[in-house]
Amino acid sequence: MFKAISAKTAALLDKELMSTGAFSIDQLMELAGQAVAKAIYKEYPPTDKNQKVLVLVGPGNNGGDGLVCARHLKVWNYAQPVIYYPKRPQNELYMNLTKQLSDMGVEQLHDLGQVQSLLKGTSVKVIVDALFGFSFHPPIRDPFNDLLKYLSDNNAELPPIVSVDIPSGWDVDEGPGECDIGASMLVSLTAPKPCSEKFMAKGKAHYLGGRFINDDVALRYGIEDYIKLYKDDSLIAKLS
Amino acid sequence: MFKAISAKTAALLDKELMSTGAFSIDQLMELAGQAVAKAIYKEYPPTDKNQKVLVLVGPGNNGGDGLVCARHLKVWNYAQPVIYYPKRPQNELYMNLTKQLSDMGVEQLHDLGQVQSLLKGTSVKVIVDALFGFSFHPPIRDPFNDLLKYLSDNNAELPPIVSVDIPSGWDVDEGPGECDIGASMLVSLTAPKPCSEKFMAKGKAHYLGGRFINDDVALRYGIEDYIKLYKDDSLIAKLS
Repeated sequence: MFKAISAKTAALLDKELMSTGAFSIDQLMELAGQAVAKAIYKEYPPTDKNQKVLVLVGPGNNGGDGLVCARHLKVWNYAQPVIYYPKRPQNELYMNLTKQLSDMGVEQLHDLGQVQSLLKGTSVKVIVDALFGFSFHPPIRDPFNDLLKYLSDNNAELPPIVSVDIPSGWDVDEGPGECDIGASMLVSLTAPKPCSEKFMAKGKAHYLGGRFINDDVALRYGIEDYIKLYKDDSLIAKLS
Repeated sequence: MFKAISAKTAALLDKELMSTGAFSIDQLMELAGQAVAKAIYKEYPPTDKNQKVLVLVGPGNNGGDGLVCARHLKVWNYAQPVIYYPKRPQNELYMNLTKQLSDMGVEQLHDLGQVQSLLKGTSVKVIVDALFGFSFHPPIRDPFNDLLKYLSDNNAELPPIVSVDIPSGWDVDEGPGECDIGASMLVSLTAPKPCSEKFMAKGKAHYLGGRFINDDVALRYGIEDYIKLYKDDSLIAKLS
């Protein structure tokens, strides 16, 4: 039986973890991004470390998860991450995460033309969609509208897209909206959001990550059944 | 061929990561403590989640790694962590890490008598020694002197001790000093410290963890051969 947490509940949980729960955003983002990298490694095992992983980075925490994911994939020699991060708020953590990538020689793209050029080659193994998370509300603003439209229109020719928490452009409750990027895999963080049910119905890969809450908190938020799905010391669980 | 990094070099590396490297202590401690938990899980697989893990927490960063390790072991249902954390500096991160454990119902001991009582039972699976790291300098001060002496004198009857980065009480370069707690396993963080060679000579388990530096940094610090030992997306490597 599918049991999701709403965007409102997910926001409350984040707020609780970072206030009375005493977690820092640095900690949670590190674990979330690491879990996304683990899920990618498992679902699409590495083949050639000279291949590329294009990480599309949004302006908020979903983007931060993507930056952390890119770093772990780089450190694990999975492939060469390349980031496209067009809107960069003056946020110290995001700036630090970006600096960590620059120090590791991670390439950065600056406009949609560069993204399209990269994707026209054959060397991109996976696209990571870390654009928008559960707090996204339409409309999709510039420059993300053109990017999402491009992904949506060219889905059949593109490498698999892995979405972080929700497929970008989807409504967190309702699912596909004005465009559907056609993600092949979803990594739900902490617990699936309502739109995940529509994603799972498509028979695509679905992982759970962000194993940082304890049984009591899980019980209070009604997601204890998900927490039980993690095996041993695994940081991810495959749901479908 | 054994190649360690000195305490001075390890301190420089930490400083570089947290200044120009743009890592936060929260991030590094999270990854270090998680790696220690992973190594414990692998070397001493779980048998009964009602068993206990006694985590001895020192006043500095080594102690912080222990607090993070305790939390991951708890979340993974490895066993029930119990912490002994007698000297608590007014450091926001350490206080937060402790709060995270309290929220998960982790038991805390308050004096050596309680530690001894717990260890006289049979329910403790592993002791985690997160007391002192590479920046330790003798003498061992109160209340840690009595604790280390107790561990040293009763080693044969105690559960296995897992030391974080260096066995507490050892000199980072020279090895055993005024007392030797007789650790059964060592988890070196980033790279082994010089005293690790004497530890390995005893034929005990030795792991590497803290997989957060890139190849360039590793090369500059002369530890690239260690970084290569990590397989796939593993967060630890068994050295011996």
